Amino acid sequence: MEAEEGEVFDIELEQSLLEANRRLAEQNRALLDRYGVKAIDVMGSVGSGKTSLIARMVELLRDRYRIAYIAGDLTTTIDADAIARYGVPVVQINTGKECHLDANLVAKALKRLDLASTDLIFIENVGNLICPAEFPLGSHQRLVVVSITEGPYVVVKHPYIFMEADLAVINKIDLAEAMEVDVDKLEADIRTVNPSLRTVRTCCRTGEGVEEVIKALGL
Amino acid sequence: MEAEEGEVFDIELEQSLLEANRRLAEQNRALLDRYGVKAIDVMGSVGSGKTSLIARMVELLRDRYRIAYIAGDLTTTIDADAIARYGVPVVQINTGKECHLDANLVAKALKRLDLASTDLIFIENVGNLICPAEFPLGSHQRLVVVSITEGPYVVVKHPYIFMEADLAVINKIDLAEAMEVDVDKLEADIRTVNPSLRTVRTCCRTGEGVEEVIKALGL
Repeated sequence: MEAEEGEVFDIELEQSLLEANRRLAEQNRALLDRYGVKAIDVMGSVGSGKTSLIARMVELLRDRYRIAYIAGDLTTTIDADAIARYGVPVVQINTGKECHLDANLVAKALKRLDLASTDLIFIENVGNLICPAEFPLGSHQRLVVVSITEGPYVVVKHPYIFMEADLAVINKIDLAEAMEVDVDKLEADIRTVNPSLRTVRTCCRTGEGVEEVIKALGL
Repeated sequence: MEAEEGEVFDIELEQSLLEANRRLAEQNRALLDRYGVKAIDVMGSVGSGKTSLIARMVELLRDRYRIAYIAGDLTTTIDADAIARYGVPVVQINTGKECHLDANLVAKALKRLDLASTDLIFIENVGNLICPAEFPLGSHQRLVVVSITEGPYVVVKHPYIFMEADLAVINKIDLAEAMEVDVDKLEADIRTVNPSLRTVRTCCRTGEGVEEVIKALGL
């Protein structure tokens, strides 16, 4: 069985698109730094617990930081509504059929926030473990959330996002036994892909491990 | 809160790329029809149970049909190896960083199969609920697998793939209670998005519901 290499229709355009995104990401970062705002890009598949994790962090951090939230979603405002309940400014980006946020969309979202009155922005990426990896947004840190329920191969099948991340969160650890998933093996897989990537285990439903995520992010 | 429309860098190219894919998909379909081969595109997120469902169907159908399997995966051969165990011809497509199969990749895979000795091909798409929807492969039917563990919003957040599908499978129903997910609500969401889409509930771990999927596919 021989592996067939993947091909794209036009490699050069792909490169120029990624390059354009990188330049816009640098502009976003410079803008954030000018206002002293820290931004965290939260990536992960659908249902992994990105919104629950952000909600828990907002709960624990809102007395110390002026927080804002940017939500990427294909069509709904479910996540945006969930975080707006905490009284933080929320910008919703509907990506339509696009499977990831890009620096251009985030640049537009940043224009809608009062950066001078903001310390910390959580950017929730579209639920997808593949494409967001290639599109930096200008955030200071990238966090990837995986859930026990995504099965034993979730890390080895998605190496690129773990290479790009600064912190990995393994969520829904309370279901590890029922799902017959070996969490130590998942952590070992993460170390193989990216030896310097720190991993935290959480159960965002109960809040377990969320303080440790906050510490790992230096917040 | 106003929704911000998603933008792509170059709409025209995107259109021509989708158009090129559609033409290649038609060619794939014509080739399959010439040999009397039926192809089924199996889509769904990571860990939803696509490979398990295909394995169960191969088990039940291999005495009646000469089956082949095309596996799309970013980097690993885990799924291909799982199905190869059943002694069916397997073609592995490594998509690298691409988040979906396209008709061009499937055309190449079809060249590696002996179509004259094949009745039925299962094409397992890359684990992703977004992009595969836009890229028909030339298959006769498209099946989307969602898992209870993907949470209560998995359908409303990914309407496009349910619009494109011919059959929806709700998998891991044994975990519905533990995950506090209302399966009737998921089915109602599917009907809202695509009133003509048939839905089957399965537990691919035990095989529950797989016979019904086979029937729904007309096999």
